[in-house]
Amino acid sequence: MTVNKVTRMYLSEDEIPKYWYNMRADMKQKPEPMLHPGTRQPITAEELGAVFCGELVKQEMDMDTRLVEIPEALLDFYKSTRPSPLIRARFLEKELGTPAEIYYKFEGNNTSGSHKLNSAAAQAYYAKGEGLKNLTTETGAGQWGTALAMACAFFKINLTVYMVKVSSRQKPYRKAVIETFGANLIPSPSETTEVGRRILAENPDTGGSLGCAVSEALEAAMKTPSCRYVLGSVMDHVVLHQSIIGQECKIAMDRYGIKPDVIIGCAGGGSNLGGLIAPFIGEKISGKTDTRFIAVEPASCPSLTRGRFAYDFGDTGRTTPLIKMYTLGNGFIPSSEHAGGLRYHGMNPTLSKLRHDGYVEARSAKQTDVFRAALQFSKIEGILPAPESSHAIWAAIDEALECKKKNEKKVILFGLSGTGSFDLAAYMSYNDGTMTDYTPTDSDLEKGFATIP
Amino acid sequence: MTVNKVTRMYLSEDEIPKYWYNMRADMKQKPEPMLHPGTRQPITAEELGAVFCGELVKQEMDMDTRLVEIPEALLDFYKSTRPSPLIRARFLEKELGTPAEIYYKFEGNNTSGSHKLNSAAAQAYYAKGEGLKNLTTETGAGQWGTALAMACAFFKINLTVYMVKVSSRQKPYRKAVIETFGANLIPSPSETTEVGRRILAENPDTGGSLGCAVSEALEAAMKTPSCRYVLGSVMDHVVLHQSIIGQECKIAMDRYGIKPDVIIGCAGGGSNLGGLIAPFIGEKISGKTDTRFIAVEPASCPSLTRGRFAYDFGDTGRTTPLIKMYTLGNGFIPSSEHAGGLRYHGMNPTLSKLRHDGYVEARSAKQTDVFRAALQFSKIEGILPAPESSHAIWAAIDEALECKKKNEKKVILFGLSGTGSFDLAAYMSYNDGTMTDYTPTDSDLEKGFATIP
Repeated sequence: MTVNKVTRMYLSEDEIPKYWYNMRADMKQKPEPMLHPGTRQPITAEELGAVFCGELVKQEMDMDTRLVEIPEALLDFYKSTRPSPLIRARFLEKELGTPAEIYYKFEGNNTSGSHKLNSAAAQAYYAKGEGLKNLTTETGAGQWGTALAMACAFFKINLTVYMVKVSSRQKPYRKAVIETFGANLIPSPSETTEVGRRILAENPDTGGSLGCAVSEALEAAMKTPSCRYVLGSVMDHVVLHQSIIGQECKIAMDRYGIKPDVIIGCAGGGSNLGGLIAPFIGEKISGKTDTRFIAVEPASCPSLTRGRFAYDFGDTGRTTPLIKMYTLGNGFIPSSEHAGGLRYHGMNPTLSKLRHDGYVEARSAKQTDVFRAALQFSKIEGILPAPESSHAIWAAIDEALECKKKNEKKVILFGLSGTGSFDLAAYMSYNDGTMTDYTPTDSDLEKGFATIP
Repeated sequence: MTVNKVTRMYLSEDEIPKYWYNMRADMKQKPEPMLHPGTRQPITAEELGAVFCGELVKQEMDMDTRLVEIPEALLDFYKSTRPSPLIRARFLEKELGTPAEIYYKFEGNNTSGSHKLNSAAAQAYYAKGEGLKNLTTETGAGQWGTALAMACAFFKINLTVYMVKVSSRQKPYRKAVIETFGANLIPSPSETTEVGRRILAENPDTGGSLGCAVSEALEAAMKTPSCRYVLGSVMDHVVLHQSIIGQECKIAMDRYGIKPDVIIGCAGGGSNLGGLIAPFIGEKISGKTDTRFIAVEPASCPSLTRGRFAYDFGDTGRTTPLIKMYTLGNGFIPSSEHAGGLRYHGMNPTLSKLRHDGYVEARSAKQTDVFRAALQFSKIEGILPAPESSHAIWAAIDEALECKKKNEKKVILFGLSGTGSFDLAAYMSYNDGTMTDYTPTDSDLEKGFATIP
């Protein structure tokens, strides 16, 4: 079968990758280590182990092992939702009249509706294996909370989710699905933690932020017996788990002889994009390919395009280790007008390093442009995308139209990380014309930068 | 690869069936023809053609052609969401401790979230091919309206959807997704039609019913230029389109040497179950197999288990041809406490005939039992099912537990027709304990029967 005939490429079950791909092993210049916020010395495995599961700490700190084996019981779980389809966007290509070939890897075909389940399952699996009874986490738009609630229901672990307050109000059905899977959901900031009470005392009407929810989940994990904190992006072990996305792409594309010229993904904390590019970036670094890698972020939360490459805290409560990353400052809170997710102030340190060293490009998009692209895509390709994922659609369409102008037959691959089924309030505001665009001014950004330690 | 190793069975793209399966060709005793309500004579193709597209009329009336070719452009569309996975419910089997093998065919992996897209795409395709500019339809829980909105966006046809008023209130996000795909949505009963005005005059506070929305959509289609009416269940051409579900199951099961002993589907209008069993029922009728076929319906809308096998109207406005079917009477409106879909007063005439002649069994389920089964399934299999589909889960679990009691290693196949992503209000009411069960009394049913002509 030739590639030109195939629209949906599925791997068979025994082709599902048995290894995650640790792209740090391919980097000549490694990301800088996390630092202890007190001593400013590289953090130790023991220190991280107070917060994270042991196996995750190992994965977090391992910059050298290229292929990390996926445990068999976890592979069994993956088989309930994977392999995910790699789809040729034939209808979109035709509508755009582009000579480019456009492919997307769709991670939304599971009840949580996004790629987040790949890491949620891994983290719940390791927690169970280490005998833990409880997990805490935060969630913003709700994709991660839903995925982890599903994973914890499966592995039978108790879960408490701190959900950014404004999201829990805007997305009652996200809240409902998290609770349906048995998790305890607390809108953040809350009165259940010291940091929550402090933030509420300073700003009683705040809608919360991801950085603040992280602080609460961390504090709760430290105070609860047999409990650890898990999170759904930013960290390198999360990117490692998400590399199953890129691994599946690589296997399928190799089978059909497809070489991507451009790989595009949306970037909030970086796990979706990092997972997608993991097995491809090494060939770029070593000079074997000239593939372009493009991170797309919202103009309203532009860490990679307008942030600083500096050591910063991962949370608003300033309790995490210091991470060398592109950051808008741990005190940065994106405008509440922004409906497209990807609201985190920082970025995965490996992606940050790759961006800094010129291997990854970054672009930002206005949200009305993103929703316009989402609608164009959905009407012709039949998938209503998550606003997050639609950032990648926007850039893919832009690249395809560039190819049309220049009559170039490039191969574009983008990550369609999730569905928009739980984002319909945002679509409604786009449909009725009330959605606005927001781009922070330089002086808005300066306020955030001032919180970088 | 042996069956025991495979959990998710995908067909490759070139294995997608190129034919629908018309199960009426396998029936020795055919369903009785539709009658003109005035003359009580069998309806003619010409009469039906005033309401339906020409090709659909042909399919509706053809009881003899076994394999009906799927047009190539439609196959191209199907490839954007199909083949759908056939999944071995290994985790559920283990949790139940049953020796039975449980398989489900999952039709929820598309943005509309259900099997309805199979017929929606076919109907929009034919309408486009016949040069029509407009379509009207009704929708209850919203699965059909969403699917048709997607199909009409793709084939670029205008669509007006009459949505049962109580559903449009309970499911604002269903409404939003239908509108996002560009359809015009009108809560029914409405002031836009004569029949709507009449029903509102009699009962201003009614939440509407599917039968009433059918009447409005029909009237609107007759009064609009270049317009036809389409519907998402009950009719035999819809069941024909849904036979792609059963066709894919048969191909995959044959490949792995799996013979189903029991095939289970939920039944509202009958398209999901009819499509699932289409290529299997002939062998039962001819005595080659002893497969059991089970239709599961809600106790609150029990057409197959407590209805009458009689000629009745398909709509509350009493404007359709008369259909020989199991019916609760065209005036029957299920309790508004019922949240599980499958609210139609009648049943597809072919399924009705098969039930009447003893080839298909029927069972009814209380909704709290259905939601209990849905939660048990979702936590272990990782798919939040539509309440409709959960009727089949309930029966499959029941059959699997019977196998456990009797230590029988049966093969159970059920149709998982859709996801519950848009049904979270119902899950919330189950979670907080406010969901109630409702079973109509005999005298409740008598009122409905009195409306059978």
